[in-house]
Amino acid sequence: MSDNAVIDRLAVIGCGLIGGSVARAAKASGAAKTVIVTDRSPQVRQRVREIGASFADQVAETAAEAAENADLVIIAVPVGACGAVASEIAAHLKDGAILSDVGSVKSSVVRDMVPFVPPHVHFIPAHPVAGTENSGPDAGFAELFVNRWCILTPVDGTATPATQTLQAFWEKLGANVQLMTPEHHDLVLAITSHLPHLIAYTIVGTANDLGEVTESEVLKFSAGGFRDFTRIAASDPTMWRDVFLHNKKAVLEMLGTFKEDLAQLTRAIRRGDGDALFNHFAKTRAIRRGIVDIGQDSAAPDFGRKPAPLPIAPIARPYAMDDD
Amino acid sequence: MSDNAVIDRLAVIGCGLIGGSVARAAKASGAAKTVIVTDRSPQVRQRVREIGASFADQVAETAAEAAENADLVIIAVPVGACGAVASEIAAHLKDGAILSDVGSVKSSVVRDMVPFVPPHVHFIPAHPVAGTENSGPDAGFAELFVNRWCILTPVDGTATPATQTLQAFWEKLGANVQLMTPEHHDLVLAITSHLPHLIAYTIVGTANDLGEVTESEVLKFSAGGFRDFTRIAASDPTMWRDVFLHNKKAVLEMLGTFKEDLAQLTRAIRRGDGDALFNHFAKTRAIRRGIVDIGQDSAAPDFGRKPAPLPIAPIARPYAMDDD
Repeated sequence: MSDNAVIDRLAVIGCGLIGGSVARAAKASGAAKTVIVTDRSPQVRQRVREIGASFADQVAETAAEAAENADLVIIAVPVGACGAVASEIAAHLKDGAILSDVGSVKSSVVRDMVPFVPPHVHFIPAHPVAGTENSGPDAGFAELFVNRWCILTPVDGTATPATQTLQAFWEKLGANVQLMTPEHHDLVLAITSHLPHLIAYTIVGTANDLGEVTESEVLKFSAGGFRDFTRIAASDPTMWRDVFLHNKKAVLEMLGTFKEDLAQLTRAIRRGDGDALFNHFAKTRAIRRGIVDIGQDSAAPDFGRKPAPLPIAPIARPYAMDDD
Repeated sequence: MSDNAVIDRLAVIGCGLIGGSVARAAKASGAAKTVIVTDRSPQVRQRVREIGASFADQVAETAAEAAENADLVIIAVPVGACGAVASEIAAHLKDGAILSDVGSVKSSVVRDMVPFVPPHVHFIPAHPVAGTENSGPDAGFAELFVNRWCILTPVDGTATPATQTLQAFWEKLGANVQLMTPEHHDLVLAITSHLPHLIAYTIVGTANDLGEVTESEVLKFSAGGFRDFTRIAASDPTMWRDVFLHNKKAVLEMLGTFKEDLAQLTRAIRRGDGDALFNHFAKTRAIRRGIVDIGQDSAAPDFGRKPAPLPIAPIARPYAMDDD
């Protein structure tokens, strides 16, 4: 292995946004010497072949073929499919291989995959907390994980040499690594990711289904705040269906707390309690500053969205002006 | 008046994000020949003087002084203060002047301002649907309104010559203009702006107040979706307190619909109804596309947030690797 590479042979199973970004980042950073990928869709495999060497060195026809002889196998499929993929590749994993994933839920992935993991394989579940609203083989990019956190949830909770190798791999991709238990991961992500998605999916649906306000009005006046929610609510439906089905308990728990807090603010609105509203709004402002301060979001206003330039040509006036 | 200017003398009362952007845009586009501004805060007035000619030609000490001889007076203060400002400037408005505002609520602004509007003045409430999470005299910029919609709610509902002048002014600032009734405006904005803000303020508060997940974890793993909500929940607390106090009825109505929809998705999660979740998530994805298609948001993934480059130098490995 060269000094630069952390992994000799990397297999990525699933070529969506995250799998495609892991493969590209491993290639671009040199974290892996050889990157072999696969996807269950023939169209996706064909598309990855067209994209070429920036994505992968080889495209395998099956998950089993991709996993063969790999030093690190990363399963990057919706969490509901992780068990099936583990079962498919188990017999093909080499002695001492590291098996990992990228799923947004960890307890259920551990439960579903562990039964298939051979004793000679190091199973280390992982979750890089990064993404965009796009999906598919063209959505990924090598820089997706830079300055983002990747959570490892080793099953016995300890940092073995294999865990350290996986950590070094993610660090080569630009990520920060933190270890925690699968259960704690699922609670943390329920509030920082799953509940925000559920809320966004809900409100975007609400806006789409109103008798009094037309869809055209919702779209036109979305810059008042609504458009921010539509980005999140444009995320991959299969992935998110699986997240909610597999992290049900933590999501419902966080949802309960959210509903209590919403009831409290609703009451303040109903009663006209301006002080309660002001105090709440002033507190949440500080949290934004904390996120920007630790580099987890841009300090630029409006996420750095670029405004178009002012129109230069005088605007044609379609009617007589009374002040001309 | 020059060919280019729509307004001879513009007065902007309130130098926050919106007032400051109106003044700057009027200067940069030449929509007004002379821009005079004021703010009730001496510190803000001083800061505007320091910013200089890109912001305003003159800084008046009082709203009454700013309004004197102005052809267009735009009140840009929190909606709860619009009535008081109208009362303060009423006797100083010149014959034929246009009086407008930029408030996010229209029915209550009409109710609060109309009693003070002299018969020789054209009162045309307005709301430019644009903004960022920042506030204060340094937050504004001339391009804020480009490609955004400005809603006019003329009290009698008709497009008078004065309405046409105000429309031409906003168009010079790059905005699209639409007329509607104050009541309909308040319903539309309740769903496209006020409810999203209420939800964001709520969930950011929820995340900040959990026993099981630390604040540090919330900040670190916020890229999973939560950070998007913190931007909106960092908006000006005074402005938003007033919005909720003054658009109570429409906000509570939309909130009722939202809660019903949330209950439906919650039930689907609880029952493990994957099809219901998938179908909902696939539908909301289309709404995002609609917003991007009409130019109300960037097509770039992740709002165009720029990822940092991959680390180039080999990462120091703090421990021995078992595969070296």
